[in-house]
Amino acid sequence: MPNSAQTAIKKQEQAPRRKRALRVWLGLLTSSQLIEKEVRARFRTEFDTTLPRFDVMAALAREPEGQTMGDVSRWLLVSCGNITGIVSRLVADGLVTRTHSVNDRRAHLVKLSSKGQTEFERMSTAHERWIKELLCGMSNPEMEALDKLLRKAKLCLAIKEY
Amino acid sequence: MPNSAQTAIKKQEQAPRRKRALRVWLGLLTSSQLIEKEVRARFRTEFDTTLPRFDVMAALAREPEGQTMGDVSRWLLVSCGNITGIVSRLVADGLVTRTHSVNDRRAHLVKLSSKGQTEFERMSTAHERWIKELLCGMSNPEMEALDKLLRKAKLCLAIKEY
Repeated sequence: MPNSAQTAIKKQEQAPRRKRALRVWLGLLTSSQLIEKEVRARFRTEFDTTLPRFDVMAALAREPEGQTMGDVSRWLLVSCGNITGIVSRLVADGLVTRTHSVNDRRAHLVKLSSKGQTEFERMSTAHERWIKELLCGMSNPEMEALDKLLRKAKLCLAIKEY
Repeated sequence: MPNSAQTAIKKQEQAPRRKRALRVWLGLLTSSQLIEKEVRARFRTEFDTTLPRFDVMAALAREPEGQTMGDVSRWLLVSCGNITGIVSRLVADGLVTRTHSVNDRRAHLVKLSSKGQTEFERMSTAHERWIKELLCGMSNPEMEALDKLLRKAKLCLAIKEY
């Protein structure tokens, strides 16, 4: 059984680990905020569009045959209310079509129109290029290592969700 | 000068690098979103407070002698308008004091009150503990490596800002 001195030593050992975890979290937060800020600005200036609008189109691009609004909202981890307005504007702009499901006439399926697919392809290519440019100071092995560690971190976090 | 075949090969080589950068970005985004979601929920349930309120208190805790609203907003990378309301509520709750600057009577200095310091200390300790718990699946060397790579990424991104 640990005596109080051992407990005190254990506490001292845990403090640097807490600080290390905090540094990792601040690093994750600031780097993702820096990228997000830059990406939002470029979507605005180069495509006159917003990041949430791009995110919804990216979710729709995953299912060329169409999906329900519930599927889209689950994928984006946001409520249906938040995306209904975005989808309606995309429909009005001719980038998304809304049809009835063959299996359930009451359910609507949404998908990118042909024009929407072309537009998404352009934005998606530019988006990939921006991210590559933003991280151009990192070597391939560094990016591989970072990707691997982020997967590990996500795995821990995803387990905590349950 | 590269011929078109060389250009085509170069393009092919760049594609995986683009994908790799994109994977890194998605990893950064999802892991920071997972942590942020959890931290917001815990601040709400355990301290009946919000993340922006904690962030403002953390910014104030950096300068025990007080700082201007401009200093706080620059540190938090948000506009003064966004934090004025939060600071006013912190003042009303007795956690922050607003005084005149000795050097410039027109400027206000804000700082944590003694009660605010105690409260911030409690929240900050809990916050560190949550992050450590959330990342408990990572070993110390893995966290060290991740911290180092995130610093490298931030450095690239910070340079892009200028």
